[in-house]
This record gives sequence, structure tokens and C-alpha cells, in this order.
Amino acid sequence: MQPAKISIINITSYIGTELARLLYRHPRVQIISVTGRSEMGKNLSEVLPHLSEIDLPIEAEPKEADLVFSSLPHKASAEALLPLIERGIRIVDLSADFRLKKAESYQRWYDFTHPAPEFLKKAVYGLTEFHRPQIAHSSLVANPGCYPVSALLALAPAVKERLIHPDIIVDSKSGISGAGRTLSLGTHYSEVNENVSAYALEGHRHLPEILQELKALSPDFSPSLTFLPHLVPMTRGILSSCYAQLVEGKIASSQKGIAKLRQIYRDFYRGEPFVRIVEAPPQTKQTWGSNLCLIYPTIDLRTNRLIVISCLDNLVKGGAGQAIQNMNLMLGFPETMGLEALAIYP
Amino acid sequence: MQPAKISIINITSYIGTELARLLYRHPRVQIISVTGRSEMGKNLSEVLPHLSEIDLPIEAEPKEADLVFSSLPHKASAEALLPLIERGIRIVDLSADFRLKKAESYQRWYDFTHPAPEFLKKAVYGLTEFHRPQIAHSSLVANPGCYPVSALLALAPAVKERLIHPDIIVDSKSGISGAGRTLSLGTHYSEVNENVSAYALEGHRHLPEILQELKALSPDFSPSLTFLPHLVPMTRGILSSCYAQLVEGKIASSQKGIAKLRQIYRDFYRGEPFVRIVEAPPQTKQTWGSNLCLIYPTIDLRTNRLIVISCLDNLVKGGAGQAIQNMNLMLGFPETMGLEALAIYP
Amino acid sequence: MQPAKISIINITSYIGTELARLLYRHPRVQIISVTGRSEMGKNLSEVLPHLSEIDLPIEAEPKEADLVFSSLPHKASAEALLPLIERGIRIVDLSADFRLKKAESYQRWYDFTHPAPEFLKKAVYGLTEFHRPQIAHSSLVANPGCYPVSALLALAPAVKERLIHPDIIVDSKSGISGAGRTLSLGTHYSEVNENVSAYALEGHRHLPEILQELKALSPDFSPSLTFLPHLVPMTRGILSSCYAQLVEGKIASSQKGIAKLRQIYRDFYRGEPFVRIVEAPPQTKQTWGSNLCLIYPTIDLRTNRLIVISCLDNLVKGGAGQAIQNMNLMLGFPETMGLEALAIYP
Amino acid sequence: MQPAKISIINITSYIGTELARLLYRHPRVQIISVTGRSEMGKNLSEVLPHLSEIDLPIEAEPKEADLVFSSLPHKASAEALLPLIERGIRIVDLSADFRLKKAESYQRWYDFTHPAPEFLKKAVYGLTEFHRPQIAHSSLVANPGCYPVSALLALAPAVKERLIHPDIIVDSKSGISGAGRTLSLGTHYSEVNENVSAYALEGHRHLPEILQELKALSPDFSPSLTFLPHLVPMTRGILSSCYAQLVEGKIASSQKGIAKLRQIYRDFYRGEPFVRIVEAPPQTKQTWGSNLCLIYPTIDLRTNRLIVISCLDNLVKGGAGQAIQNMNLMLGFPETMGLEALAIYP
Repeated sequence: MQPAKISIINITSYIGTELARLLYRHPRVQIISVTGRSEMGKNLSEVLPHLSEIDLPIEAEPKEADLVFSSLPHKASAEALLPLIERGIRIVDLSADFRLKKAESYQRWYDFTHPAPEFLKKAVYGLTEFHRPQIAHSSLVANPGCYPVSALLALAPAVKERLIHPDIIVDSKSGISGAGRTLSLGTHYSEVNENVSAYALEGHRHLPEILQELKALSPDFSPSLTFLPHLVPMTRGILSSCYAQLVEGKIASSQKGIAKLRQIYRDFYRGEPFVRIVEAPPQTKQTWGSNLCLIYPTIDLRTNRLIVISCLDNLVKGGAGQAIQNMNLMLGFPETMGLEALAIYP
Repeated sequence: MQPAKISIINITSYIGTELARLLYRHPRVQIISVTGRSEMGKNLSEVLPHLSEIDLPIEAEPKEADLVFSSLPHKASAEALLPLIERGIRIVDLSADFRLKKAESYQRWYDFTHPAPEFLKKAVYGLTEFHRPQIAHSSLVANPGCYPVSALLALAPAVKERLIHPDIIVDSKSGISGAGRTLSLGTHYSEVNENVSAYALEGHRHLPEILQELKALSPDFSPSLTFLPHLVPMTRGILSSCYAQLVEGKIASSQKGIAKLRQIYRDFYRGEPFVRIVEAPPQTKQTWGSNLCLIYPTIDLRTNRLIVISCLDNLVKGGAGQAIQNMNLMLGFPETMGLEALAIYP
Repeated sequence: MQPAKISIINITSYIGTELARLLYRHPRVQIISVTGRSEMGKNLSEVLPHLSEIDLPIEAEPKEADLVFSSLPHKASAEALLPLIERGIRIVDLSADFRLKKAESYQRWYDFTHPAPEFLKKAVYGLTEFHRPQIAHSSLVANPGCYPVSALLALAPAVKERLIHPDIIVDSKSGISGAGRTLSLGTHYSEVNENVSAYALEGHRHLPEILQELKALSPDFSPSLTFLPHLVPMTRGILSSCYAQLVEGKIASSQKGIAKLRQIYRDFYRGEPFVRIVEAPPQTKQTWGSNLCLIYPTIDLRTNRLIVISCLDNLVKGGAGQAIQNMNLMLGFPETMGLEALAIYP
Repeated sequence: MQPAKISIINITSYIGTELARLLYRHPRVQIISVTGRSEMGKNLSEVLPHLSEIDLPIEAEPKEADLVFSSLPHKASAEALLPLIERGIRIVDLSADFRLKKAESYQRWYDFTHPAPEFLKKAVYGLTEFHRPQIAHSSLVANPGCYPVSALLALAPAVKERLIHPDIIVDSKSGISGAGRTLSLGTHYSEVNENVSAYALEGHRHLPEILQELKALSPDFSPSLTFLPHLVPMTRGILSSCYAQLVEGKIASSQKGIAKLRQIYRDFYRGEPFVRIVEAPPQTKQTWGSNLCLIYPTIDLRTNRLIVISCLDNLVKGGAGQAIQNMNLMLGFPETMGLEALAIYP
């Protein structure tokens, strides 16, 4: 059988290189072209030596393919993808450009006028665990942001089962690769090493995405959600700590309640290959390089408060791995294909 | 004028070495003896080469001194200090053994029967900003835990001024030195590096300390507080992110409200040498090696929620620096003496 | 076809867990038993959550298998393996116990009397690139130390082709996982982070191994080799910088000479799947998680001195990956099977 | 007594900020002006919050002062300093612009035509331990590079006493702050973290500086020196490992020889406040934030080879601290003034 042909737009981003790393070992696809403005004309092996087995030139435009990944920044991605969308080519967009359903959200949160609002409704939000059937039949999948994957998977069972009040705090800690490969003082080694900081206190762009999907899960639930991201000195990993008050009468604030809570979470994710409800608080390192999201729900018995900890690798389940999971569905491959590697530890 | 004589019990802990480092440069004191069971009989310079200017043997028992610091673990500290307390020697205890007012709290949280409950009331909780006059006249000061310093300084103005509802989340991120110098898999380099984790989800020992002091600040305020500590891969630093719902009618959820909030915080800490209300979200690195606590209060305008970020160096303002600040008061020295160094950056 | 049955002795070491991670994805083998004294009786998933797909109990003794890996410490490994060796079971020993040909070397360098000197000659030194045919036919392979792999691959072409004088310096920089999972102050996070140190200045145990193999390569070459290892604050990776004076008349100290040198290196390793001569100075991160050794030979034209930089992942090509490469040969599988993953970057 | 007035050119470099941090606590000086092109017009506290006690605007030009520090990059520094030199103002230049005695070296190594070659002879190379009397009487001191300080202090006794052959290897490992605050992919957190690399294999700019000073120490000694710098993932610190063959008949290759060697080193640096010959291999962390250089000379008894390990903080003894040590001499202050802080550990 012929492998499916894949093109990657903007290979030189961290998400782009991670797509290439994972796809290189996928038994049913072949990367046929990669693009990257800044390094155009060079060979992939010169620019990204760890990918030198993939012998391809970096080009200006993606070749015609069965599926195209874009890891361009927002706005640039929509612009680059529009002609491909119009030709009906299957796309997984790793930018934010097709995640939000309302065009005005782009004005408000991303400060640009969306060039193709007509496709926002058509695009499917690519969190596989939420929208598996639609993804399988879509030709335009908007891969979720790294923080939203960690927050949504942690909160979904509690929201869906209406276990919690709408006052929710999501306090996320991310490795620095989430900030991408673009140079800035905020990602300069000596500034970031031995340092923790909170950022985007006025509102992070991933917030509308989290709200949109929580509301979709439980339409008459109106979350009042504070999402605060933090940078911690490591390359990969997101740990989100989620807090919300338990609704009276659903789950007891007791050891038995905790057991019931875990069972609800396990039931919710039964059969999911990449979500695991764990018995002890997880660590980001347990997901390093893998497509797993580890989730630990518990109750603060003193305050009757739900706490959920979730961990994932921001470049895999929070990025390229999630995108390949979607690709597998879109191309009819087993969902886990190419994503079976265990985490690298330590 | 004769320098005051100082002894340090358990010099080989990280807090102990940090006390020595800071006291060595203090113009009015002299370290006359240091103890440490595991390295007894050796010279300080052999065991802790960065302290080799301090030419002292490590002994079994502290010499008679004007003030004694103990950085022993809980229980061991109370036992070692009892004879000194009875002789009326001035003490700053960096363990938890005299922080809590109720003896039964030690049974519950620290799993031992307190050997000297009669001294719990006598001891003063050594957060200088809260109990300055009492500390100055006390001979037994219980230096606060590192997390409580960061949480209490962040929350005090809001609690005191009754700006917030009692549902409070404190999500803290700490460097690894907070776990001390005792070996464990959880502080083994390869396990901790490139890793973030939450711990003590069933309740951390610093929680009763935070609650006790918040209640003391505002007696009819009954906080329902979830405190969740996290380990991040760096040596020093604590960043606490505190969340609570604003009470209606006190502070508007607006830019003007934010300005008013900052003013309340600035007023609360006016004249405090080591607390600074900052204009931009602080980073732990800005406090590295210094005795400062940086505090950034703001409002999540979408949810009408107070967010306060506080940063400090867990071994300085969260430990040895705070202890020396107390010592200065107890011995009648200027409060900032020996603590004036700026943070080392980067 | 039945998969080959594999047992791993001492799964809880870092090399042991890395073997399990890699073997789990190997298409022709099945791990049938794992041992580990300290965690005996528990399930693998409890102790090493990232391996929870491997559903095995940790036992006291390895099950009968087609091949057994031991990652016990030296001395313990020989003792545990002796009965298996006598039964003729195929073994890859990752300890030092069968690497050296002379029994007295164990007395001198490892401070114990070798329990089975008769097997030292029988054992094959498991650096595949040096002893491929013997490994394929051996039932006792002594997997090389992590430093020796990096030094030997870097120096072999120069020594074999007699390009250099015998005065050789190997200055190696290793990540902390090379020190294993056993607790010590020297691997305690806060001691190691933000720190570089040299160690074993009186002679590291990997020195006799390097000398033995260099002499075997070129019997009348008597290296006068200083090997100095350093610890750097990262989890994985070894970079070795090797220095030696060029012999007159072999390679010119010129750009042309450098080109010739590279060609000699490329020719020497032609066809080797896991050694790559690179065109730019390599970085350890380019080998993270992969079985590659990257080698960059050049000449310091001012001093007519050979410099060779080599990089590898100490737990893969310097440990578990090298061991599986040997296993593949011993069991008749393609040499690269299960080892094809690209490095994870960043 | 009036404090001496100090200006700092290019405060926003890491060396500039470190000068400010250290000078702020110096009892005899006052920083009166700071410059910095990119942040001109802002207040220091906005740009560098850890320096907010220093309440100064960032200006375009330095104010007239008793002494001016420049931490501009090479070429820019000479250009900015020329008018000040001509006016006879005392200067410590932290760039390379006045370190080399020969104007053509700037063409060759720094690729520019030196704008003021007439001042090269006048300038004194500011390694205090080598040129103390000249520095005290100079008005133009060229502060040494960070690597040269570590290499020269390590090698000086051996070269001066003619203990070694001229074939010398200096293998240095540096923290990332040595690369400065200018953004580049090579200092981008995710690229550098968990990574070690060698760089400048064709010759680093600090090489001519090391050679010039070694020759000055021992005029008929012609070192054939290979200097290879490496980047390791930490913010501060340099460890240099120096190797050379011992000359016959000077020092025996024995324990006694090692003792004699240490004595020679101790004698050489007797009375030096910032150089310490240590009894155990030093670690960079033992110098973190301090002006110390720790030196450990030993002999590889198997190969009759000298090994010297030196450690320092590249921003202090390798930069700002060394510069202040020079300033103290130039202004007639005690040499150690303002530099007495112990290292921060851990």
C-alpha cells in the first residue's frame, strides 16, 4: 500500500520539528515536503541535525499532499492555508486560526481580522477525546493549544457530570519550549534558568478556547474561569492544577467520595488510548516525549474542593502528537499509530 | 563594642549554611560555635568549602551565646532547645516546633507529642511584618515556614481589609532546596530535573501555620483555604499564586479597582524594608539571594477575582534572612543590618 | 514467529528502566521477567509509572529466558550471573564485571576478587563497532561503560591509522544520570544544579577499559592517556573532547588535512548504523534518547593537534541501546531493530 | 569623605548589571550615571527590577566621573572610550579592546581596525594577580576575558616555575551568561538546556590573550596551546581543566611531587585575597557570586602529567568583580573592598 503523502508547513518551529520526528517513524505516511521561510533552500539536515535521516530540502511552498500540517504562527497560518482549504486538501492546523468559532474572537484576542470567517464553523476543534467522529470526517482540523488540552482533559468529567460549581481556577506550569523557537529575552537561557514567573495576568489567548469547549461540553454551565500560566525552567511539559468547589450532593467529601470521583473519571475516559487516570500525583517527566495525558483527580477534604492535576508533554499531546492522532483518524489509520513510544525517563 | 555571640545548631542543613553565609558579613555579630551531628569533629571548611573563611570546628553542642539559631528538623529542634529555653537564652528556631499555638496540632500534623507545650504560647511567630513589637521583646521566636511567608505576605492586606471571600487557593511553586539536604529519590537530580510535580495533596504541614496567622489577622474571618505546593526544577525560589473572589462593594472590578488595590497593598506595607509591591509580575530570580518579598496584586476582571503573585528566596526571606531580621530586632540592631545585598541576577 | 524471551536483572536502575523502555517497542522480543531487590513484590507500574504498559511484577530472580540483561552494580552482577553463565544462557552484562581481560584489574580498580576469572577471556567486549563478529557468536557480552564508548569511537580511527602520538587527553562531560539512581550528596539536586565539577582525578574505573581496547586496536601503540570525567547539570548526555598531537607526515595541518581526516573517519565507520561523522561540532542534545554517536574530528592548525568531539546519550548508546544492539546480533535480528528512534529535540 | 563617582557604560549587559549590583554595596563609591542604548530614557528599576534600589535614569552618555567602566562590545567600547581616554579619565574597559598589545591582532581576531592603536601599549592588562603595581598607577585598565582569568591563574605557577612542557590543553566549561544578553539561537533556553557543546574549534578570541600573558610571564617559554571552550547548561561559572606534561627533574610523579606542586602553587599565590589553592577538586558552585578563583593542581601519576582545575564565577572574578578589584587599586581603596561576600550555596 502506498504511504499517505504529508507536507509540513514551517518545519523550523518546535512543533514542526516534533511532527517530523514522529512522522518519520509512522509506518503509513511519508513526509514529501517541508517549508520554512527563514531557512529556505537549505537541507533539513543542515538546519536540524537530529532530523538528518529525513533527506529533504526546505522549500517555500508545500507540495500537494494527502494531508498538510501547518505550524505557522496565527494569522500567517490562515493566510497560507486558505488556498489549500479551498482546494479541499486535508489540513491539521496547529495555529489558533481555526480553533475559535466566532470571528470577532480573533479581533479581540489575537488582534487581527480573520481572513476566512466562513471556515470557522466548518473547522473541527481537534481535541480527539471530545470530537472524535467529527475529526474523522473533517478536512480542516484545528489542533488545540497546549494549555487547553491539559485543562480540558482535566476538567471535562467534572463539568460534564456537573460535579462542580462554575468558579474554576486553572493554574498551569509550562516548560519553555511552549514559547516556541522565536528569540526573546523571555526565553533567553540566563533569564529563564533558575526562575519561575506567572504571565498573561490580563488574560491568556488560550482562555477563550478553554471556555468555548467547556461550554460545548455542558451547554448550561457558565464557567467563571481564571486561567493563569507560569513558566518553569525546563524544556518540555505542562502541569495544570485545577480547582473548583464541589456541588453539594453529588460527591461526598470523604475517602469514599474520592474513590467515586476517580471512578467517574475512569469511566469518562474508558478506552481512551492517551488519557490515563493515575493513582498517585503525576509528574510531567512521566510524559516526556509521549502522547499521554496523566490525570489525577482528588478532593481537598478540608474545603470540599475538587483538585485535578494533569500532566502532558506540550510538544506531543499538547502539539504534534495530538495532531498526528487527528491525522490518523482523518486518514483512516489506527488512532495510536506512530504514537506508541513510552515516555523517556529520566 | 563587642559583637553579639551567635551559635548555630545544625549548620549542615541548607538553612544553617545560609545563616552562616549571611551572619559572616553582619557587622555586629560573631559566630562562635556551630553544631552538626553527621559531620561532628570536622572543620567547617572541609564540609562546606564555600564557608571556609569561617574557621570553626563542627561541635556536638552549641556554645553559650547571646542568641542561638536552630535549624534542626522538627521534634529534634524542640528537644535540643528545651534546656536553652529554660536558661532564658534568646532563640530563633527555624523548625516548626514553636510555630503553632496548639499542642494537639503537633500530634495531628507532625505526628509527635510536643515535649514542651507550655512554651507554645510564649513563643512568638517570627513573621516580622506581622509581629514586630512582640519579636523585639521575645526570647523565643519561631521562624515561619518558607511557604507561609510567601502566602501570608501575599494575602495579609486583602484579609485584613476584608477584600475577599474566605474561599482561597494558594498554588505555590518551590525550588528544590526547600526540601533540604537530606537525600531522597524526590530530590535526586535525574528525577527532579526537567520535571514539575504537585505534592502533599492530602494537606501540607504549612497549612495550619497559614490558617493560624490569617485568623489572627482578622479574627472573624474563617478562611476555607486550599494550599497546594509544587516542586519546580531550580534550586531556590518560591512563587505563590493566590486566588480569591472579591467581596462586592469594596474594590471595583476595573482598572481603577486594580489601582486602588495596589494602593491598599502599598499602604499596608509602607515602610517595610523587605516587602515591595511591584508594578509588573515578579519573578523568583529577582529575589535570588536577597531578603526581599515581591508582591503583585491584581484583579482578573473577567471573573472579579483577586490574584496575588508573591516571590521570594526560600532560603533567605523564607528562612535564614527572615531569621536574621528577627535576630536584629531581638538584639536591638537595625532591622536590615546584614541583609542589604541585592539579588544576584542572572 | 515466537518473540524471544528476555529477562532484566535490576530493573530499577536507570539502565534497567531504559532497557525496558526500548525493549517494549522491539518487535521481536518480549520481556518476561524483571528483578529488583529494593522494590521486590511490587508491580512495575507502581515503581516506574512511565513503564506501566509493561504489566509485570518485580521479582527476586530472573525467569529462564533466551537472553538476560544485568544492570546490577559490579561484583553483584558477576555473582548473580555466574549460575546463568554456567547454564549457557545468553547474557549481556551492563556492569563492568566482564569487561576487563585480567582478573587482577578487578582487584586494583574495583577492589574485589573476581569470582569467575575463567570467564573473563570468554566474554566479548560489547562495543559492536569493534567486535561485531565475536559478539554475534558469544553468549557472554560485557557491555562497555558509557565513557569508554564515547572515547573509543572518537579515537579508534586515529589510533588504528596511527595518525597520532600516544599522548592523549580525553576530557569528558557527563549528565548526572550516569551516576545512577543510588542516592548520594553528589547527585542531590541542589548540590549539582548550576554546578560543574571534575572528579576521579586519581583515575576513573573506565580508564583501564579504554586502554585495553585502544591497545587491542593497535597492538604496538602504547597510549599515555589521561581521562578526566566531569559532571554537568543535565540528566543525559556525554560529550568527550579528545586531544592528541598528530604524527608528522600522515595528515597535513591544513584545511586539506582536515578534509582528509574526515574522510579517514568516514571510511572507518562506513556502513555503521549508529556512528555518524558530522560536518559541524555536535551537541549532546542531538543524540537525546537515540542510539547515535556523533563524531567530529578536526585539527587545531595552530598546534598541529587532533581534536575529536564525540556525543552520545549515556543511557542509550552508552548503555541500554548499545546492549540491545548487541542483543540483536546475538539473537540474529537486524542490528538496528528497536533502535531506530530519532533524537528528541529540543 | 566624599565617595568616588562612578559611571557605567552599557548597564544592560550582564557584566554591566553585575557591576551595578556589586558597586551598590561598595562603601566608598557612588554610581552617578549609567548608559544603555536600547533602554535609554527608562529608569533602571523598570529595566532591571533587581537593581531598583539604584534610582537612576538610563542615559545616552556617561556623566563625568572619577572612574568609568565600559561593558560595551568590542570596537564599540574603544570608540566610546576614546574621548574619555584623551581627557585622562580613569577607565576599566571590560571589552577586549585594550587587552592585546598588537594592533594587528584586532584585525586578525576581531575583524576590525583598531581606532586607537597608540593606547594599546599604555593600557594595562587587568589581571590583578599579574600586574598589580601597574594597575594601581594606570588610568586605562583592560579587564581580562573570563576564560583567560581561569586559564592564566591555573597555569601561571607552572609556567613561571617552568614545571611543564609547552604543549598545553585548556578545556573550559562555561555557563551561558558568558555569552551575554544578546539574543541568539545558541542562548535560547530550549536549545541550550540539557545540552553540552564545544564551540570555536577554529580558535576562540580569548586565545591570543592567554598566549600574550603566558609569554609575558616567562619570556622564553613558547606555549603550543589548544584552548577549547564548551557551553554547559547553567547560568554562571567557568571550570577550566588544564593539562601539560611535566618537565623531568622538577617535580616527581609521586604523592610527594603532588605535595610539592601544591606548595609551589600556594607560595605563588601567598597573600592573594581572591585566589585559593584548595585541597579537593573544586566546583563552580563554590564560587557562585563571589570573587574567588579556586585552583586545584595535581599530577596524573600514570602519565606524569600536570592537571590543574580552576573554578570561578564568570561574571565576578571573570568580569565585574575583577574590574572592581582593579578599581579599588586605581582609586587607592583596599583591594577587597566591596568584594567580601561569600559564595551563595546551594
